Amino acid sequence: MQKLIKSLVQKNDTRILMIILDGVGGLPVKGKTELDAANTPNLDALAKESACGLHIPVAPGITPGSGPGHLGLFGYDPVEYQIGRGVFEALGLGLEIKRTDVAVRCNYATIKDGLIIDRRAGRIPTEKSRLLTERLQRELGKIDEAELIFAAGMEYRFAVLLRFPEPLESDAVMIADTDPQKDGKAPLYPSPAAKNSERVARIAEKFINMAHDILKDEEKANYILMRGFSIMPHIPTFQEAFGLKALAIATYPMYRGLAKLVEMEAPTLEGTVEDEIAFLKEKYNEFDFFFVHVKKIDSYGEDGNFEGKVAQIEHFDGLLPQILNLKLDVLIITGDHSTPSVMKGHSWHPVPVLIKSPYVLGGTVSGFSERECLKGELGIFPTVNLMPLALANALRLKKFGA
Amino acid sequence: MQKLIKSLVQKNDTRILMIILDGVGGLPVKGKTELDAANTPNLDALAKESACGLHIPVAPGITPGSGPGHLGLFGYDPVEYQIGRGVFEALGLGLEIKRTDVAVRCNYATIKDGLIIDRRAGRIPTEKSRLLTERLQRELGKIDEAELIFAAGMEYRFAVLLRFPEPLESDAVMIADTDPQKDGKAPLYPSPAAKNSERVARIAEKFINMAHDILKDEEKANYILMRGFSIMPHIPTFQEAFGLKALAIATYPMYRGLAKLVEMEAPTLEGTVEDEIAFLKEKYNEFDFFFVHVKKIDSYGEDGNFEGKVAQIEHFDGLLPQILNLKLDVLIITGDHSTPSVMKGHSWHPVPVLIKSPYVLGGTVSGFSERECLKGELGIFPTVNLMPLALANALRLKKFGA
Repeated sequence: MQKLIKSLVQKNDTRILMIILDGVGGLPVKGKTELDAANTPNLDALAKESACGLHIPVAPGITPGSGPGHLGLFGYDPVEYQIGRGVFEALGLGLEIKRTDVAVRCNYATIKDGLIIDRRAGRIPTEKSRLLTERLQRELGKIDEAELIFAAGMEYRFAVLLRFPEPLESDAVMIADTDPQKDGKAPLYPSPAAKNSERVARIAEKFINMAHDILKDEEKANYILMRGFSIMPHIPTFQEAFGLKALAIATYPMYRGLAKLVEMEAPTLEGTVEDEIAFLKEKYNEFDFFFVHVKKIDSYGEDGNFEGKVAQIEHFDGLLPQILNLKLDVLIITGDHSTPSVMKGHSWHPVPVLIKSPYVLGGTVSGFSERECLKGELGIFPTVNLMPLALANALRLKKFGA
Repeated sequence: MQKLIKSLVQKNDTRILMIILDGVGGLPVKGKTELDAANTPNLDALAKESACGLHIPVAPGITPGSGPGHLGLFGYDPVEYQIGRGVFEALGLGLEIKRTDVAVRCNYATIKDGLIIDRRAGRIPTEKSRLLTERLQRELGKIDEAELIFAAGMEYRFAVLLRFPEPLESDAVMIADTDPQKDGKAPLYPSPAAKNSERVARIAEKFINMAHDILKDEEKANYILMRGFSIMPHIPTFQEAFGLKALAIATYPMYRGLAKLVEMEAPTLEGTVEDEIAFLKEKYNEFDFFFVHVKKIDSYGEDGNFEGKVAQIEHFDGLLPQILNLKLDVLIITGDHSTPSVMKGHSWHPVPVLIKSPYVLGGTVSGFSERECLKGELGIFPTVNLMPLALANALRLKKFGA
């Protein structure tokens, strides 16, 4: 299907805006979901004149992580294109991953007499971890032909990129995790599971030993464990797939990282949703497609804070008129997955979506909510179909066949 | 899926009628679509007691041509079975294409000093073109082992079939177009792109040279360009796939041609929708399945004539009681795609459909329109699923498994 879409793409001067209200879908408390409970006159008015529906990020019953959730929104089948754990961790810590990099999630750990006695190094403070990681970066800039790039994380966690002179095949990272998964066991050897992965395994082993040499006098964090050796998925760029020059506007590194996976431009940005909208206005003339990521709605959902999630939805609603004033040709508002406050986490529930363009039926819903979107002209559909619909509404797809 | 359906087909004496209101789906003007605006008491009453829904011809966001639109209705995946441009042109000009034929779209062009100075031969009048094409037919009945069958088209266009003694493989027509796409350039050679296509390319080259010899004294149309070399798709017949003896009732050659692709009977017929219904009555006892094509609704949509499209829908509504009097076992009314007047062309929007049979739920919609069909028991579904539903309602599919 992706090949068919690519063959039909045509260019024009339309602009598409996709706003992702992270985790926006919810479940009822006393009969009302977060979207029902929120007072959202602007979203409701927009939904009435839009094409509405619900989308399923991966498959019925599957709860998506942020990675698969966003890949689907960007038009890529999230089962076909899986993102390795190392890549995902590195993206979340703000590292730019190149096609020549091996990304690995690491833990600081405590080793004694050859046994791992604490896999999380006593959950050392984040600040302490940052100092250790900076030291590793200073002393271990390169091992053999691989350049090392570190990023500190929370507490005992960090990520490392092994940057090679040239891109690696996918089997070059078929390397076993070294984490024994239980305290009191010896760390595992980073075993190459394929002939082609021996080279990376050799460097990983050297890295573990050299890091231990540097850290050996630390009381807790005197060893490292490596997990999730992975490379960037071989994925067509967004420009190749859809003919769109795309800008990602997101204040969290992970979402910029996901956008960079498909080579959207994703400049570093800090601040509020207001700052994101200001940036959108500034860049309006330079791109065909804008992905704007709104994080806080999900955060309150994850905390189980129903009222907080409602307030964040209402806050976005207040900003919507500014966005509508930009008069984009196609406007999509949805989430990457549902995060019902009552579940304190992501869920499998279909996500409400609206598409505003001159070419919609409209007039089928009375507001923007899970139950209203069920009445919409888009029905319930796989998330990966959203990009073809966006392109169609922007008149960017030619007719198929005569 | 097609294989599964085939394995379940059983025969009985039921009759199925599929009426295609070409391009019937629309978009609102002042809140109402063409179907909303039309006064259609008969269609609305029928919809109330029918299974209703909307179908997606190819995939979400994909605008189908008439070929893919009809193949889906006939129960064939339009992405799996693609119809070449030459075949499509020849069908549209009323040629009967056999499995031994190579179909090619051709242009008359003007050549001077080896360069194409007008790719459309000054848009010579259709009547002039017809005379030239008749002359080519007289003088070029056969080249080597290939018989030539011509059909004149509008202005500078015509189609030719190269009829071989035996069927050809699909790679036998991998031949480059000879149209240079720009005036002022030399015509291209019909290059074979596969070893197996050299034979057809050789005859095409001879044809171009022999035609030039015949036409060389013409002021404008002194050369021909060839495009879209193609053969009939290797497609199971309708009888093989569904066990139905089918009659196509259509006044436009293209739709009869599409029906002939799957070996429906499709006798030449001229006239109005009334004439089509009279023909249906006449042939009622001779077939299991009737495909009736109603063209004019689409034509007004293509012209952007909202009121004209509304009037054609109302005209059909007036004839519906006569059709209902025939008491077919299963009656399907739908379109092959949407043609919103506001878009002046085909679109990707799902197409309203109703199925009337003794075995439907019914009672879910208040009339036949895009928005009402959203409430229907069929939901939104791929067009290719319509034929299995038709067979099921005719009790022509056995139970699957014990």
